Amino acid sequence: MQTLHVELGDRRYPIFIGSELDPQALLEPYIHGKQVMVVSNTTVAPLYLQHYINAIEALGKKVATCILPDGEKYKDIQHLNLIFDALLEAGFNRDCTVLALGGGVIGDMTGFASACFQRGVYFIQVPTTLLSQVDSSVGGKTGINHPLGKNMIGAFQQPQVVLADMAQLKTLPPRELSAGLAEVIKYALLGDVEFLTWLEMHMEALVAGDATLLAEAVYRSCAHKARIVANDEKEQGERALLNLGHTFGHAIESYLGYGEWLHGEAVATGMVMAADLSHRMGWISTEDLERTKKIILRAQLPIVCPKIPLEEFLAYMSHDKKVLNGQLRLVLMKSLGQAIITKEFDVELMKQAILANQA
Amino acid sequence: MQTLHVELGDRRYPIFIGSELDPQALLEPYIHGKQVMVVSNTTVAPLYLQHYINAIEALGKKVATCILPDGEKYKDIQHLNLIFDALLEAGFNRDCTVLALGGGVIGDMTGFASACFQRGVYFIQVPTTLLSQVDSSVGGKTGINHPLGKNMIGAFQQPQVVLADMAQLKTLPPRELSAGLAEVIKYALLGDVEFLTWLEMHMEALVAGDATLLAEAVYRSCAHKARIVANDEKEQGERALLNLGHTFGHAIESYLGYGEWLHGEAVATGMVMAADLSHRMGWISTEDLERTKKIILRAQLPIVCPKIPLEEFLAYMSHDKKVLNGQLRLVLMKSLGQAIITKEFDVELMKQAILANQA
Repeated sequence: MQTLHVELGDRRYPIFIGSELDPQALLEPYIHGKQVMVVSNTTVAPLYLQHYINAIEALGKKVATCILPDGEKYKDIQHLNLIFDALLEAGFNRDCTVLALGGGVIGDMTGFASACFQRGVYFIQVPTTLLSQVDSSVGGKTGINHPLGKNMIGAFQQPQVVLADMAQLKTLPPRELSAGLAEVIKYALLGDVEFLTWLEMHMEALVAGDATLLAEAVYRSCAHKARIVANDEKEQGERALLNLGHTFGHAIESYLGYGEWLHGEAVATGMVMAADLSHRMGWISTEDLERTKKIILRAQLPIVCPKIPLEEFLAYMSHDKKVLNGQLRLVLMKSLGQAIITKEFDVELMKQAILANQA
Repeated sequence: MQTLHVELGDRRYPIFIGSELDPQALLEPYIHGKQVMVVSNTTVAPLYLQHYINAIEALGKKVATCILPDGEKYKDIQHLNLIFDALLEAGFNRDCTVLALGGGVIGDMTGFASACFQRGVYFIQVPTTLLSQVDSSVGGKTGINHPLGKNMIGAFQQPQVVLADMAQLKTLPPRELSAGLAEVIKYALLGDVEFLTWLEMHMEALVAGDATLLAEAVYRSCAHKARIVANDEKEQGERALLNLGHTFGHAIESYLGYGEWLHGEAVATGMVMAADLSHRMGWISTEDLERTKKIILRAQLPIVCPKIPLEEFLAYMSHDKKVLNGQLRLVLMKSLGQAIITKEFDVELMKQAILANQA
């Protein structure tokens, strides 16, 4: 087991990364109060819920559960409210702990609920997908979607602890494993060309679910994100680099309707568009662009999206949170492995990059 | 005009207290970005909305509005969502300011919406009721109700600035002015017996709406609250004293259904119950209890609530946020003008104090 600390002053917390982790021993120091609400979904609960209930009850805690339907399309205010209903029906008060057992959707909703319930209670994350292990388990961004935009409503809420157990990835569908690899590739593309070379060496083994290599990929991804987040918790600057591919990707997800494409799939194609625009701007070479597309393809991810009318694509992009004073900012690659956030791009080239990567 | 600063480090903010304040001059330094959403209700908007729109537009800002129905019963997740709808339909992004123009309900909902929209945007408060001027404009507590409890979902969100304009109290119904006086009396009872004497000298003039005396009462109340909040922003200790009368009051409000009694009315009777229990505990004299009841009566406030079955009353009290490890804590008076928070009270005497102050 490896331990990574996210350095956020008095909100510093550990991420435990390994296989067959012992939740009773690892969670004990981090559960506050006597009441624990475990929030999960209908896919994950049958597989892992009882294991965590047993571990927490063995610590002498009262456990209640809230099981939500599985999918990004349920990441809305109505389903958020079901967590509040469960907390109040169980009689939970301010001195409780809320544990998210599931992927990014469960983590985002549960974290946001824990930030709002009684104006803030304790939060623990057990991410069960590769995507949530490398992305949403670090950084404290939580929230829900709105029909007019993704993650429009939320809070910054740091967990007490994160348990990333590779054993749980065995039950993950291959498509979801690939979606997680999209974010892994993102860290390489935005800031670590040496990690890109490592991924090029191991991609087929990662896709096949090699637990040791996956743990290493999770550790390196989380370490990368943790360093950025520690420098810029509230996303005033550097943290925005983590959105490489996301402004394009959010437009794809929004147009298709949440849940059609997985988040990681949309980000994958979004990164191709960002790389394509970086190439058209003269910043990265044709070879760099091809290398980007190839590692994404080898991760079993899409490099083109369905045909989307350009005006609608641009309208969805304009809802992005990186819009500042009405000016769209994009994360692009100044060189391979070195991303920048910039409003200095050619809009016509951007439109070309979008259109060039549609089916 | 008097200015009071709430000292919260880098979130320090001013409260301007006076009559016929100039919003254009006072708001200018505190509006961030070019987009301002004014949230108000159907009662306040016809009276004051245009005045603020004009002032903000004169500053070169884009103004959008969201008008909610008036009343505590609309302080729920569905109506909160209408603010998010309005923000997104207006195309507002992370760099916007949200202004609450209304009473406590509008302030609580708007503040909470501003805390969650895009994970946090700027917030300005223009409280238009006496209650919101002396209570919800200081301290950053925002939130909404849940069918199982008041203010169960929310956030700590500090405003950039607060404008408390006594001229707006002229249109306030007498019943609401009295409800605001309940919180004014609360500050005297919990920590300032000299202020109680001042209120006893001026209560009829305050009820009649004397603007100079009201401004003084608002200033003294806000100063009192600001001092407590500066010491204890997240309600770990001293701040809980501000809940004098509120645990009983919340039970009354919850049983009757939000909106039947005004919050201040429920707090008034709640303070009588707290004083009564303090008397039964041997901490305050019969004369102190009578003095408490008399100042509340002179403010045109109720000192008894309708008959409520004891078990239901207690069940609603057990949902209070001050419950810690399953143990109810109450704010009581160790002496008149000196409140304490304690779990050391006799439950039988508490039941007697509840029953003794029902109609």
